[in-house]
Amino acid sequence: MAGRLQGKRILITQADDFMGPTFADAFREEGAEVLEDRTDLTVPAAAAEVVAAAGEIDVLVANLAAPSDAAYAVKVSDERWNHLFDVMVHPMHRLVRAALPAMMERRSGKIIVVGSATGLKAAPGTAPYSAARSAQVGYVRSVGVEAARFNVQINLIAQHFVENPEYFSEQFQQTDAFKKLMAEVPAGRLARPEEDAALAIFLASSESDFFVGQAIPFSGGWAQ
Amino acid sequence: MAGRLQGKRILITQADDFMGPTFADAFREEGAEVLEDRTDLTVPAAAAEVVAAAGEIDVLVANLAAPSDAAYAVKVSDERWNHLFDVMVHPMHRLVRAALPAMMERRSGKIIVVGSATGLKAAPGTAPYSAARSAQVGYVRSVGVEAARFNVQINLIAQHFVENPEYFSEQFQQTDAFKKLMAEVPAGRLARPEEDAALAIFLASSESDFFVGQAIPFSGGWAQ
Amino acid sequence: MAGRLQGKRILITQADDFMGPTFADAFREEGAEVLEDRTDLTVPAAAAEVVAAAGEIDVLVANLAAPSDAAYAVKVSDERWNHLFDVMVHPMHRLVRAALPAMMERRSGKIIVVGSATGLKAAPGTAPYSAARSAQVGYVRSVGVEAARFNVQINLIAQHFVENPEYFSEQFQQTDAFKKLMAEVPAGRLARPEEDAALAIFLASSESDFFVGQAIPFSGGWAQ
Amino acid sequence: MAGRLQGKRILITQADDFMGPTFADAFREEGAEVLEDRTDLTVPAAAAEVVAAAGEIDVLVANLAAPSDAAYAVKVSDERWNHLFDVMVHPMHRLVRAALPAMMERRSGKIIVVGSATGLKAAPGTAPYSAARSAQVGYVRSVGVEAARFNVQINLIAQHFVENPEYFSEQFQQTDAFKKLMAEVPAGRLARPEEDAALAIFLASSESDFFVGQAIPFSGGWAQ
Repeated sequence: MAGRLQGKRILITQADDFMGPTFADAFREEGAEVLEDRTDLTVPAAAAEVVAAAGEIDVLVANLAAPSDAAYAVKVSDERWNHLFDVMVHPMHRLVRAALPAMMERRSGKIIVVGSATGLKAAPGTAPYSAARSAQVGYVRSVGVEAARFNVQINLIAQHFVENPEYFSEQFQQTDAFKKLMAEVPAGRLARPEEDAALAIFLASSESDFFVGQAIPFSGGWAQ
Repeated sequence: MAGRLQGKRILITQADDFMGPTFADAFREEGAEVLEDRTDLTVPAAAAEVVAAAGEIDVLVANLAAPSDAAYAVKVSDERWNHLFDVMVHPMHRLVRAALPAMMERRSGKIIVVGSATGLKAAPGTAPYSAARSAQVGYVRSVGVEAARFNVQINLIAQHFVENPEYFSEQFQQTDAFKKLMAEVPAGRLARPEEDAALAIFLASSESDFFVGQAIPFSGGWAQ
Repeated sequence: MAGRLQGKRILITQADDFMGPTFADAFREEGAEVLEDRTDLTVPAAAAEVVAAAGEIDVLVANLAAPSDAAYAVKVSDERWNHLFDVMVHPMHRLVRAALPAMMERRSGKIIVVGSATGLKAAPGTAPYSAARSAQVGYVRSVGVEAARFNVQINLIAQHFVENPEYFSEQFQQTDAFKKLMAEVPAGRLARPEEDAALAIFLASSESDFFVGQAIPFSGGWAQ
Repeated sequence: MAGRLQGKRILITQADDFMGPTFADAFREEGAEVLEDRTDLTVPAAAAEVVAAAGEIDVLVANLAAPSDAAYAVKVSDERWNHLFDVMVHPMHRLVRAALPAMMERRSGKIIVVGSATGLKAAPGTAPYSAARSAQVGYVRSVGVEAARFNVQINLIAQHFVENPEYFSEQFQQTDAFKKLMAEVPAGRLARPEEDAALAIFLASSESDFFVGQAIPFSGGWAQ
């Protein structure tokens, strides 16, 4: 039996980070051909080059991550602030701008932004991170509508509390701070990366053809 | 290869109406055993009886529908108003109350409320309907959190613009009013029932174990 | 200097309960004539009679309250469930239906629903209450749009954590449960009733002429 | 009788643009001392200098505006994209970072970000602008919670469709495109700047002490 992504060519950015490795494996298991890119996308010209080099793709996964070091906003330097936008926000636009026209012309394609539930709900201690993640949400909402008439679907995974060495190290999972954090998650646990991948497969497949510009909370009920 | 709902017993209410027939077919194709109920749930005692008669179920689909006749709120009689709540809101609570305890005890189960995007966004001309559908959303949000700690997931499909003889007759689809309506849908079309079923399968399967109390817009971008 | 509500006739329902007494005082201080009604609005015919008896009014305050006894949804009887809708939801529609036509004809008027932030955000332990309060939100959103073209504004105060003997007794405020609750409120305190009245004055005055069908969170940041 | 802002010192940035002149007049009429700043805040060091030069202030109005030229996202250059963030997003953080510590120390103060309803709802044709405005919303939500415990309130006016030569020229108001746009606004008209100022006065005064990190839609019902 063919996988749910049989025959699809999928480009994943920052492929070694964040959800990159998990999504790549999951997509392959469903029959996709996965192009894993590791280019530094903070270089302005990089996004266009990466997309051009990939050739025709059915799905672009804008997997863009920077660590969300907690700090009160008043302590956050311009350098740290800019880094968040340089890594997560500006390359998103450059990737979409590069990949979307061909999809619109073919009247087929999907873009998935791997975002954060902190783009939907207050996360004190990470206001700059929330700002950058909210920019992603706002962008996807509007460009998603622009793309929909051309049968291209752009959506965002608004995730939080997913097992991930970058955000939740084994060490941190042993602390009281972690236990306290889990009390805020209705599910009472972290998600397994494979559960997140199940949502990504749904969004990458034709099953989500009626989803337009949505930021789907994936956070164990923290954001709804 | 086993279906995504292999071995699941799924109870669907109002099985001849709204999404009932489509969901039943789709669930069966994924390997589920589907119990189709057609009992009139406006009778207060009915919900408990239906759930008891079903025996152990893995998934309850609270498929509750009343036509959404457009009318300015000031024209809507008590009779019409009460009918909307009697059909869509009150039985939802009675079904959840009947089915949830056994699921919580087994620490496994799912409840899907087939709701409406008009529960998330203004729909002038259908204020009473929006009120009833919003009640569903508010209920699912909160009871979803209550159930999550017991590993039971309760979520809602906030759908609109799905091909359905009840809401979008062939005849209506030929009118200018329909064309005008479609201009408000970013996807520019109605969803095929099968697309809606794909979301229902996702929510009925273990793929959605980290979704808690969510009202997921399924409306071609009308609500996001 | 004239008050901000000089010359306005304002009808408040359930005038001895919830925000009734505070709002009445505050409106009078701003120059309004306040009609305090204490009729039992669960009687279907009552709303129309109350509105008719009031004569021409500029502002209707649908102040409808039932205690929000915490209980897991699975424990909530039909009687309790129905009471919430009978007190807070159904009379809201009957009041709007009675008062709105005259306002639309005069192309001037305001309706304020005194609602709850639990109509916007999960409140585990009070799912039935949240359902009823969400119904209010959904209704206001849609009927608010219907009324706007006639220059009538309908909005809702989505309040929570307001000092009020009904919801937060002096006794309860001494408990650990209360302290724990306050930790969930970013403001770290209950609102004084007068602060809530300031929002009500804003919504009752011409200052809110551009507010349409909005549910404005007033909850110290709990809902945003 | 004293005005509602009697004795308050209010700093407004970009004072000649966007809501600057209207808000300054309105604040003065309510008794405030208004400091109108016209410094170019795209210069990284400028925000701290402006705040330092202002001395003790009770209210900071982060009035940051760049024109929202409509264009499909795929057509928007890096230069245009960066300009939106350089003008509206990055200076917001620098202003808050400069002004908030003194307010937190005094346990009193307010910050109002003059933002946009496009930060809350899809606005196809202005995705980059929506992204920048959403970043503002996300930032205010989270930093608002951080500030609340120190009795400092940070909120955002999510406005749209306010009479303003920058966004709605007299010329544009004569076009069919404008009429079509107004059909999307439930209020059916633009807001008068004074109506917007009424909300700003509310947020600048002690009347909003229980508002925390909120983005309040002011858009005639377009966003709710």
